[in-house]
Parts: sequence; C-alpha cells; structure tokens
Amino acid sequence: MSTNIAAKRPSVESAQTVERVDWKKRKSEIKETQKQRKEEKLIKQLEKQKEVEAAEADKSEQSQNSKGRAYTVSVALPGSVLDNAQSTELRTYLAGQIARACVVFCVDEIVVFDEQGEDVKSVEGEFKGVGKKGQACIQLARILQYLECPQYLRKWFFPKHQDLQYAGLLNPLDSPHHMRIDDQSEYREGIVLDRPTKQGKGSMVNCGMRKDVRIDKQLQSGLRVTVQLHKSQNPESKLFKGKVVAPHLPRTEGGLYWGYSVRLASCLSAVFSESPYKEGYDMTIGTSERGSNMDQTKMAPFKHLLVVFGGLQGLEASLDSDQNLEVNDPSVLFDLYLNTCPGQGSRTIRTEEAILVSMAGLRPKITAAFADVSSGSKK
Amino acid sequence: MSTNIAAKRPSVESAQTVERVDWKKRKSEIKETQKQRKEEKLIKQLEKQKEVEAAEADKSEQSQNSKGRAYTVSVALPGSVLDNAQSTELRTYLAGQIARACVVFCVDEIVVFDEQGEDVKSVEGEFKGVGKKGQACIQLARILQYLECPQYLRKWFFPKHQDLQYAGLLNPLDSPHHMRIDDQSEYREGIVLDRPTKQGKGSMVNCGMRKDVRIDKQLQSGLRVTVQLHKSQNPESKLFKGKVVAPHLPRTEGGLYWGYSVRLASCLSAVFSESPYKEGYDMTIGTSERGSNMDQTKMAPFKHLLVVFGGLQGLEASLDSDQNLEVNDPSVLFDLYLNTCPGQGSRTIRTEEAILVSMAGLRPKITAAFADVSSGSKK
Ligand SMILES: C[S@@+](CC[C@H](N)C(=O)[O-])C[C@H]1O[C@@H](n2cnc3c(N)ncnc32)[C@H](O)[C@@H]1O
Ligand SMILES: C[S@@+](CC[C@H](N)C(=O)[O-])C[C@H]1O[C@@H](n2cnc3c(N)ncnc32)[C@H](O)[C@@H]1O
Repeated sequence: MSTNIAAKRPSVESAQTVERVDWKKRKSEIKETQKQRKEEKLIKQLEKQKEVEAAEADKSEQSQNSKGRAYTVSVALPGSVLDNAQSTELRTYLAGQIARACVVFCVDEIVVFDEQGEDVKSVEGEFKGVGKKGQACIQLARILQYLECPQYLRKWFFPKHQDLQYAGLLNPLDSPHHMRIDDQSEYREGIVLDRPTKQGKGSMVNCGMRKDVRIDKQLQSGLRVTVQLHKSQNPESKLFKGKVVAPHLPRTEGGLYWGYSVRLASCLSAVFSESPYKEGYDMTIGTSERGSNMDQTKMAPFKHLLVVFGGLQGLEASLDSDQNLEVNDPSVLFDLYLNTCPGQGSRTIRTEEAILVSMAGLRPKITAAFADVSSGSKK
Repeated sequence: MSTNIAAKRPSVESAQTVERVDWKKRKSEIKETQKQRKEEKLIKQLEKQKEVEAAEADKSEQSQNSKGRAYTVSVALPGSVLDNAQSTELRTYLAGQIARACVVFCVDEIVVFDEQGEDVKSVEGEFKGVGKKGQACIQLARILQYLECPQYLRKWFFPKHQDLQYAGLLNPLDSPHHMRIDDQSEYREGIVLDRPTKQGKGSMVNCGMRKDVRIDKQLQSGLRVTVQLHKSQNPESKLFKGKVVAPHLPRTEGGLYWGYSVRLASCLSAVFSESPYKEGYDMTIGTSERGSNMDQTKMAPFKHLLVVFGGLQGLEASLDSDQNLEVNDPSVLFDLYLNTCPGQGSRTIRTEEAILVSMAGLRPKITAAFADVSSGSKK
C-alpha cells in the first residue's frame, strides 16, 4: 500500500508502512487533512448534542404512552451517492431528495457512511487534494442538517457555507416541527438566547414565535433545545412559559414526527457499531436487487430499525472498502436482505429512488408488526 | 368570461360570447395558437402510430401466453407539475424523475393532462403570449418521449429542440428495450430505412445492431417499428432477418417491459374518454392524502389500470378546471380513491415522489391480484 496519497482517516495512517516520503506532497496532504478534520468537527459538534440527548431518550423510553411511538427508524447510505449527480445544482438537489424521502417516511436518524475510505487512494497519478468527491459525506450531512433545522433557527446554526450555495433550490421538508410563527403546538424547537436572566429564573429561548419562551432550566446560550410549552399561558405576559424536554418526547409522548438526526460513519461497520441507541439496532435490513423478495417477508416488532442502502455499485462495494469487515456477501450483515422492487422495469434503481420505493414497501409491514402487538396485547 | 386572452383549445373559442375585440392582441393570439397547434400536431404525429398499434394490440391480446403480461398500467398526471420546478434545469430533471418512476414500475402509458385549460385566462393584465407555463404539457410529453426512445433511434426522431436543451442532465431509463449494439434479444425497436428494396422483398430496418434487419413487409420509411428477429440467422449474411410485430408483443408474449407510450389530454375527463384501449380502463385509481387508507384495500384482476395523480393543488384543482365534469369531489370519478402513504411525515408529498410511493404500494397488490387468479384457475 502506497502512502503518497493523504489518508482520509488520520488515525489509521500511522499503521501504514512508509515506503518513500515526498515532503512537498506530504505538507499539502497534512493541510488538507487538517481542513477536513476541522469540517468534520463542526458537523460533529452539532450532532453531539442530539446524540447525547438521544441516548438519554433511550433510557426514558419506557415512559412512552399510548399516543406515542416508541420505536425508531434509521436509514443509512453512502455519501458517495452525491458523486452520481451531473452538476453542482443537482448534487444539492439530490441531497434534498434524500432528506424528503426520509421525512415522508418519518425516519428518525440518517447515517451517512464513507464507502471510499482508504481504498480511494490510487498509487498512480498526481495527488489532487481532497476534491469534491472526497467531500461528499460531509456535504450530504450538512445539507441534511440544514434542511432538518426549522427555518427560524437556520440563521443561528448555519452560517454561509459553499455546501449550501444552492440551498435555494431545495424543496422544504414541511415536517410537523417546522412551525410557522403563529402555529399552535405543544412542542417547539428553539435556541437558548444569550440574555442575562436572574439566577434560578431559567433561560430564555427563541422558538420562532411572537414571544420568547422562559424555560425551567439555566442552559448555555446557543444550544438547540426542544421545548414543551405550558398548557395555559398568561396572554398578558411578555413571555411564554415552557420546559426543556428530551428531543424524543414529541415522538414518544405526542406521537409526532420530529425530524431526524444526522450521523457520520467512517465506514459501513461503523454504521452498526456506533449506534446512538444503547442496545444498538435490533432489526437491520439491507437492500439490494439481489435480496430476497420482500413480498414474502413479514416483520416482527422492533425497538430500533436500521435500513441500509448502497451507492452506485451497491452494498457489495461498501463492504469491499471496509477493512473491518471480512465477509464478501453483504446479506450476512443483516437480519433481512431484501429486494424491495421485484420485477423492476429499469436495470437499476438509483439510491434516492430506492429510499422512497423501499420505505413505501416496508411501511405497511411496520404498521402490521405493531398492529399485531397492540391487538395481541388486548387479547 | 372575457376573450382578450387566447383560448388554449381553439375549438371551444367559437362558443364564447365576444364582448370587445382588440385586433392587435387578437392577431398575436392567433399566431400563438397556430404555433401551439403545430407543436401539438408534432407530438400527436409521433404518438398516433403507437396508439393505432396499441388499439390493434388490444384486439389480439387474447393471444397472450403464460410467459406474457396481458394487463396494462397507465399513469396520468397534469403537465403543470413542471411549473413547480425552480430552474430550467430542474424542470427537465423533474420530467426525467417522472419517466424513471414510471419505468421502474413498468408503466405502459403516461397521460399528460392539461389542468389549466380555459381557466388559466385572467381578465386582468396584459396578454404575454403562451409562456413557459402554458408549454408545460407539451414539454413534459416531449421529454418523456425522448427518454423512452432507444438511444440509437433518437437522432432520427428527435431533432434539436429547446425543450431538450438540458437532456444531458437526464438519467437514462435503462429499460430492457434500450439495447446496446451487441445485446442479444428476440425483439428490437427500429426505424424503417429509406433504402430501395426489390418489390416483395420487404423493407430494411435499423435496429441499432451491427447489421440492418430485412423485415417481411414493405413499410414507409421513417416509421418506428417493433421487430421480432428470427430465431436462427445466417452468420454469413450481411443482414439479419425479422418480422414486424405489434409493439405489445414483447409484453404479451415475451413478458418483457417495453417502455411506455405518451398521450396528451386536454383536460382530466379526456384522460378517461380518450383511452387508446377499445373498452377503456376497467380499473381506475385516484390518489390523494384525503383518500382512504390503501392498506385496507385489496385489488381484483383488471385489464387496463389507470392511476391518476394531481399537481400542486391536488386532483380537486384538476377537477375544477374541467368544464366537462360537474362533480366537486374527485373520489366519485374513480373505482378507488387512495391515500397511498398513511402517516406521512411531510405535510405534502410532491407528485414525482407520489408516483414512486404509490406505485410501490400498489405493486404487491397487483401481484397478489394476478397470483390469486392463476392459482385460482389451477384449482
Ligand atoms: C444503483 S443501486 C445499486 C446497483 C448495483 N449495480 C447493484 O447491483 O447493487 C443503489 C442502491 O439502491 C438500492 N436498490 C436498488 N434496487 C433495489 C431493489 N430492487 N431492491 C432493494 N434495493 C434496491 C440498493 O440499496 C442499492 O445498493
Ligand atoms: C403536492 S400533492 C397535492 C397536495 C394538495 N395540497 C392536496 O391537498 O391534494 C400532489 C399529488 O401527489 C399525490 N399525493 C400526495 N400525497 C399523497 C398521499 N398521501 N396519498 C396518495 N397520493 C398522494 C396526489 O396525487 C396529489 O394530487
């Protein structure tokens, strides 16, 4: 293995045998690596908060009531799908299609994995820096996060960035947590304001309403929080009152779809191993035209479902580039390996299409799985 | 109703009460109408042939064998969906998404209907000519036809046109009848060549292979034909031998998906009344978030299924603008009026998404309907 191409994951680098070092190249590589690390850090920062809260959520999920939804659905796909677009505008549009497909089917987590990892390094040719291709995962994650963020919070969390240059072309998600200024809702997403409040009085939160919200806790300004508004408010007051709750509450208690979190995974195996849910995913589905006919499949109830899609070359390619996985056949990684479109009229279904098609096929099976449970428990 | 705006459908014009005639405007209106008529004629010319053959097909459908598929699936949608795109490139891309969604689910006919018809005329403001908006139906139809046409025939049937300016951005359909030069197949699409042949010897057809095909009949040059190649060919010969067959044969005899035909309808009711199938559609489905839950629906076998989608404002708007339909509730027009995505996480599903979602939901129901039949007939 040659080392004159920058390692994408610096931690792996030291394990490689150094053959010959070209210092000029090396320097530009390091610079690139640092730049990328910085970008990844930014993305991770934003996500960390959601993940910590998701873990919290996991613990208290038992508190779920009859109106709520206890289970979660995660979708994973390689960032490389963006490289399948034919222009910069269409790259952005494709990211938007993925976001919308996930929202239509109430997906709670989107995992973007790197399927190029170490293998992308070619020994031949000049090193051209981390081009657009290398950036696909981060760019996809950023656009997904941008779209998920309620419009009124975007100016705080998304400073101008070239990945968002064509954000104006994106179709809105129109999910329930994207509230307009006068919409009435028990829950709202907000940002903790940097406004001095008396000790013990709690922080102020901007929830995109005509008045700010005073919450029960003193929190660091700049945090994104989920707020539950008090049932009765004093119309005379200059403020609304509410309390900070775990971001899963609108789902587990209110039965509302509350957007998705975004997670970056450095390879396919990390999609499974770095699950934000304490006990991991208890139901995993791989998708492929070479999978078994989904029509013959019934689903059992689950806590955390993961549905994994491949890129241009399918999940086989994602597997090949993962140094942690020694199997060759992707089907062994999953509880189910499904062909979700038997009899397809096109030789190949694109990943962004496959998400809509597959989730549309799984939807009634999920519904049936949980209907059986609730009707079963009544007996 | 005012007449100082050009009627889109000239035949209806004479029935209107003329109040005041502005001759300068009138002239430009007539010019526009003529231009549009010419465009529509071109599209119709291309389609006519396919329709005539489809009607033929209808008669001889009884000849279907066990490998083949006897039933057809049609999808209808308003051309106005293109006006929902945010750039000219994305307009083209959207048309491509629709074509791909239909091909993935083996749709045999796409009907593009005009849901703006007469109602688009506004009494206020200047007449600005038939702008981009008015062209949506024709543009969508043209792009759909372009994509359906095998690559090797496009240069004959699709001269340069501004509607196809961004055709390079379109994702290929990759359907079975889009053959590469050396692909082996019993059937191929071709164009009758303008090459002198001896009387009674049959015409020559270019089917995108290394050799041309001599067919059994003498046909007019420039026709698009479906050719069935003889099982055994003489490898020494400079030509392949084959015969012209009805375009439904690859489907009804071979069980192959063979692309779609495109039909323009001047309003929603014309989608039903101008069916190319002699006995019309025997199973019609309207789609809407206000439809009944598709999960509770079973389908019976059919001959000709029609699935209708609305535009930005849903099928209610398509109904409103149709002067032939006096009902207000779209559900009465259809055998089934279905919500194909119960529990959707976005307030609105876009038409191009709804096609994938709905057809993915209907697919197993269609399969089941015909599986019941064949297992039933065995008993
Ligand atoms: C472009 S396709 C991959 C095609 C690749 N040549 C292969 O053979 O897998 C991209 C992804 O869409 C999904 N996909 C495509 N067709 C599918 C089908 N019939 N059933 C389930 N998933 C499918 C899979 O996740 C696949 O990895
Ligand atoms: C943008 S939607 C129309 C939304 C419009 N506001 C309405 O209320 O109907 C465009 C089309 O997508 C289809 N569609 C959207 N959601 C659907 C659903 N849940 N079930 C079935 N079809 C749906 C319908 O054909 C609809 O006319």
